[in-house]
Amino acid sequence: MGEFDLIARFFTRPVRHAALGVGDDCALLAPAPGMQLAVSSDMLVEGRHFFADVDPETLGHKALAVNLSDLAACGARPLAFTLALALPCVDEAWLQGFANGLFALADQHGCELVGGDTTAGPLNICVTIFGEVPAGQALLRGGARAGDDIWVSGRPGEARLALDALRGQMDLPAATLARLRARLERPTPRVALGLALRGLASSAIDVSDGLLGDLGHVLKSSRVGAEIDVHITTDLLASGALQESAKGIFDAETMMPCALAGGDDYELVFTAPAARRAAVQAASSASGTQVTRIGRITPAPGLRLLDRTGQPLPGRFASFDHFA
Amino acid sequence: MGEFDLIARFFTRPVRHAALGVGDDCALLAPAPGMQLAVSSDMLVEGRHFFADVDPETLGHKALAVNLSDLAACGARPLAFTLALALPCVDEAWLQGFANGLFALADQHGCELVGGDTTAGPLNICVTIFGEVPAGQALLRGGARAGDDIWVSGRPGEARLALDALRGQMDLPAATLARLRARLERPTPRVALGLALRGLASSAIDVSDGLLGDLGHVLKSSRVGAEIDVHITTDLLASGALQESAKGIFDAETMMPCALAGGDDYELVFTAPAARRAAVQAASSASGTQVTRIGRITPAPGLRLLDRTGQPLPGRFASFDHFA
Repeated sequence: MGEFDLIARFFTRPVRHAALGVGDDCALLAPAPGMQLAVSSDMLVEGRHFFADVDPETLGHKALAVNLSDLAACGARPLAFTLALALPCVDEAWLQGFANGLFALADQHGCELVGGDTTAGPLNICVTIFGEVPAGQALLRGGARAGDDIWVSGRPGEARLALDALRGQMDLPAATLARLRARLERPTPRVALGLALRGLASSAIDVSDGLLGDLGHVLKSSRVGAEIDVHITTDLLASGALQESAKGIFDAETMMPCALAGGDDYELVFTAPAARRAAVQAASSASGTQVTRIGRITPAPGLRLLDRTGQPLPGRFASFDHFA
Repeated sequence: MGEFDLIARFFTRPVRHAALGVGDDCALLAPAPGMQLAVSSDMLVEGRHFFADVDPETLGHKALAVNLSDLAACGARPLAFTLALALPCVDEAWLQGFANGLFALADQHGCELVGGDTTAGPLNICVTIFGEVPAGQALLRGGARAGDDIWVSGRPGEARLALDALRGQMDLPAATLARLRARLERPTPRVALGLALRGLASSAIDVSDGLLGDLGHVLKSSRVGAEIDVHITTDLLASGALQESAKGIFDAETMMPCALAGGDDYELVFTAPAARRAAVQAASSASGTQVTRIGRITPAPGLRLLDRTGQPLPGRFASFDHFA
């Protein structure tokens, strides 16, 4: 199967919003008047971002999900994406599975494939995504202010627990592993939450590298510091695990590094003025996305990890770098 | 060097036109009112699109050039691009060379880097480019009409001659090889010509896979056929080679497949009404880009290759498939 047949068979669908989709030298997009176009690219490489034997449908989902997550973190509404795909061989069953996973998630978000490229080469997936956001309303990293609350969606650390278990570094009950593995392999981009936080959150970022590491980008851009109530993040992670009565496995020592530094969750970390707590909860309800307040922004730079009593964590847990 | 240091050192420059550049979850672009955004992605893989030992500056040039060429083929003005880069290792000298080649060409076209991704992995370069074009004025593949002239810029086939020589399948004088190698490795995207052809060309495409193959996409989209005056394309290719007195090497048998089916030239093939010949020549002059009329669009489908007397080429040269 040649490149053009492959594109025609697996990756060409009529566009409904774009002015022009797959099949010419360029796609044509026309953002609505007053809208800015939000753009992000993520490249996924075998062995680094996914296991070689990953289910292709799952991979199709994830390739788009990580890009949708970037739009979510900006409060942008998904519009369209391009797909560049390097394939070691043309495996029709694999391509069909990949396309199914990709388009299922795309359809959920009304986000359409408008172009891209296919070539022979080591497996590599590069999606570039486009969303729109009213001019001046994008959620950026530089807007956090002293006194703002720090919030997080979902339960960061679940993807890392799954990764540790799949690598044989941890034993998990089958039901727990199945649930956590879905968090790792089929993350839910928090698009609805990002939209609900427009005009409300002072800053936002998605958790791809780890909660503290990604929050660090916000602190640096905003020139502020933060205190994190560590027990809230570990309790949050444990609360999910408890659903499967796997309580015994999940001690704080195991939880803490996963919650604070585990990557690949694609949850949102965001800040909002303390006076807007009710509005944040309303945004959470409206978007059907759990959010939890885990700390606060401080004028003093740096990141302080506090224990249950509000005191700095002792010894080796006190250092942000330990987790980064 | 970590991902963030690498991006900061080699790939972060202040943006002048985009609303937001490298460093947040998304870049923000704001097309001017009445403009459509033209979008294209091209992925370059080692061994397939470039030799492993290619000069990194040359590679940086080519990675952007092939994308600029897609904008040229749509008549879009370059605005911005994203770069996703998988690197087997962090080689600072290589990165500096690559960035130099990339930004030198970007600056020529006022096209700025606004975002992207870097990761470890087999060398892979994926650029997604953005241009703008007044709504409804993009040069598309589907607009060719019976009676239109078929034009081509530059001298298609030169990149293929260089490739054959570099593969040891042809001997070339050193000066000729140097000139043709530059055509292969540092193609000139015909952006100025594309802009000059707005409102004039009825269709356009860039020559990445070969003159006849790419023209075939136009014929299919436009539901028309074409006659090509083969001697004009071969004479055109030979006329460049003659500059180095390499005449003896370039017989028609060698020239024809290169001119008709050689890829990687990134010239434009376009159609325009016969009544607009003077305007096409004026666009050529205004953009400083040589163009040559090589045939005409016919109502009958299919592609006919004609000899110097206007008769169909005999035998094995008559078939389009032979070259595709």
